Amino acid sequence: MSQSAKRIVLASRPVGEPKPSDFRLEDYAVPTPGEGQLLLRTIWLSLDPYMRGRMDDGPSYSAPVPIGGVMEGGTVCEVMASNNPGFAKGDIVLAHAGWQQYALSDGKGLRKIDPGVAPISTAVGVLGMPGMTAYTGLLEIGKPKPGETVVVAAASGAVGSAVGQIAKIKGARAVGIAGGKEKCDYVKNELGFDECLDHRDPDLAAKLKEACPKGIDVYFENVGGKVFEAVFPRLNDFARIPVCGLIADYSTIFGKDTPAPKWANSIMRAILVKRLNFRGFIVRDFASMYPDFIREMPQWLREGKLKHREFVTEGIESAPNAFMGLLKGANFGKQLVRVAPDKA
Amino acid sequence: MSQSAKRIVLASRPVGEPKPSDFRLEDYAVPTPGEGQLLLRTIWLSLDPYMRGRMDDGPSYSAPVPIGGVMEGGTVCEVMASNNPGFAKGDIVLAHAGWQQYALSDGKGLRKIDPGVAPISTAVGVLGMPGMTAYTGLLEIGKPKPGETVVVAAASGAVGSAVGQIAKIKGARAVGIAGGKEKCDYVKNELGFDECLDHRDPDLAAKLKEACPKGIDVYFENVGGKVFEAVFPRLNDFARIPVCGLIADYSTIFGKDTPAPKWANSIMRAILVKRLNFRGFIVRDFASMYPDFIREMPQWLREGKLKHREFVTEGIESAPNAFMGLLKGANFGKQLVRVAPDKA
Repeated sequence: MSQSAKRIVLASRPVGEPKPSDFRLEDYAVPTPGEGQLLLRTIWLSLDPYMRGRMDDGPSYSAPVPIGGVMEGGTVCEVMASNNPGFAKGDIVLAHAGWQQYALSDGKGLRKIDPGVAPISTAVGVLGMPGMTAYTGLLEIGKPKPGETVVVAAASGAVGSAVGQIAKIKGARAVGIAGGKEKCDYVKNELGFDECLDHRDPDLAAKLKEACPKGIDVYFENVGGKVFEAVFPRLNDFARIPVCGLIADYSTIFGKDTPAPKWANSIMRAILVKRLNFRGFIVRDFASMYPDFIREMPQWLREGKLKHREFVTEGIESAPNAFMGLLKGANFGKQLVRVAPDKA
Repeated sequence: MSQSAKRIVLASRPVGEPKPSDFRLEDYAVPTPGEGQLLLRTIWLSLDPYMRGRMDDGPSYSAPVPIGGVMEGGTVCEVMASNNPGFAKGDIVLAHAGWQQYALSDGKGLRKIDPGVAPISTAVGVLGMPGMTAYTGLLEIGKPKPGETVVVAAASGAVGSAVGQIAKIKGARAVGIAGGKEKCDYVKNELGFDECLDHRDPDLAAKLKEACPKGIDVYFENVGGKVFEAVFPRLNDFARIPVCGLIADYSTIFGKDTPAPKWANSIMRAILVKRLNFRGFIVRDFASMYPDFIREMPQWLREGKLKHREFVTEGIESAPNAFMGLLKGANFGKQLVRVAPDKA
């Protein structure tokens, strides 16, 4: 007579853009923790572009979600029951419980969250993986110097908004790219970027040239596609390009018949002649920077130098549509699913 | 009644591969040094792939050679007359006198060579720019670790031969690529690479896979073209790709109608998923490493850990053909022109 819960599983591997039938809502019995285990109740589920990659089974840095498996995802959870001496009932933890209401854990990889420091949802946002992605990629690979120009797309999103604001903190000029006037206004007026361009603008390339009169020194690559095409010719000598995502390409470049991008014939020559540095990374490559991150970022938040915005949908059932929207830029701020209220 | 000398000037900008009529042999009067100047007599002229770039007038890290201008090049010269207190008649210097028998200099950028350390020709070879290119790009960007696999093309040439031998000194596995059995035998048997493959082999991709059973951790890119195509799918996670030349592409990729290379649709995804690091460089970006270079390389030479080979043509008139041959891999070792005997 166990309690029933809901979860989202991968129904089929998407061909191109994911569609509703690639996901399936399932009922399941809330599990009972065994020896050393805890039962987690998911409060916040983070939706992030990397999840598109887990839906494919090509070679990648992580194993794919199996067909029928629960969709992966970072979560903020409450410990409901614990047979593990490291955690007590009522603890709030950062977990990787996936797209489901309840999950078991053996405690490995969990991190306790102090609800007194900041709203607990920030643990999967500006003070979590997206914030750390921005912090590490920008500072360790991008290395912006005062007066240099940093360009980042998805600038109202979780990673992009932090990239531009950290660039400003470091004395660089920040130029954002976002979808639509409302987001661009927010990026420029609220987040304090120097400029923000609309990627839907047919004159994006010309506008970008205008917004970056001294060229581009750091391009934080998290979207690919047309934005990269516009950025590529404007890269300065010795430009650094941290590559952490290609959201615009996730559902297209996997096809073998896709025409080659415009820059294809010149990228290697540009790397040589301009002495460019392209470097891919994922956040766990820079795990050693976590102590610096968790010291500096909350301080910048408190000082008002770092703002963030959340875009919340309600209920685990909303996750597939919210995720498909995220891939198209329908979110405005960090995409979260409120799976359950803070208190059960 | 001044003495007459010979020089090679750029007659026209090549379209594709340079041809003999792109160069012109000229007579000119040996100049007389003015105040603060010296007269240099060229003994050795170095021919290097980068010169192909200087023949074009597209954007690059250096100004192009003007039409009618003397072809550029590193040289080893004797000071024949000096009105400069820094240099005396008889000094042997490393200069950038170009493709000519005599040149004036104000002394700037000259470096005195001690003929007691090594044959003076090594100042434009293994102990000069090509050696320094190998040393800095491999150690500063490639960073080979013991047991890793380093691949380099043009492996019997000035840069490639040093790259593989330095990789071996650092405990890595060195796999060379060269043109033809004779060069491959030399690279493997004389230079001590673990393997050397013939880039003319139609099965290059399969052979490379076999020669690199644990994949490729460092690819020192100095050729581009088909070698890069074969290397690209074999790159390991976290592979480093120092890019210092694209000799196979110099005369082709400039064309806008060239079909996109095979890797075009997947290079950005590979950078992301494999966390690759592509970084272009030229030797002067790493000028601060010169003291280390000039301490370590002569020592490795003396210890027999670093071997080198010179490929010499005679007389300034031979430079155009020798250079055109170099671009096709006709040289076997560091390409030099002996412009004049050591003693005038």
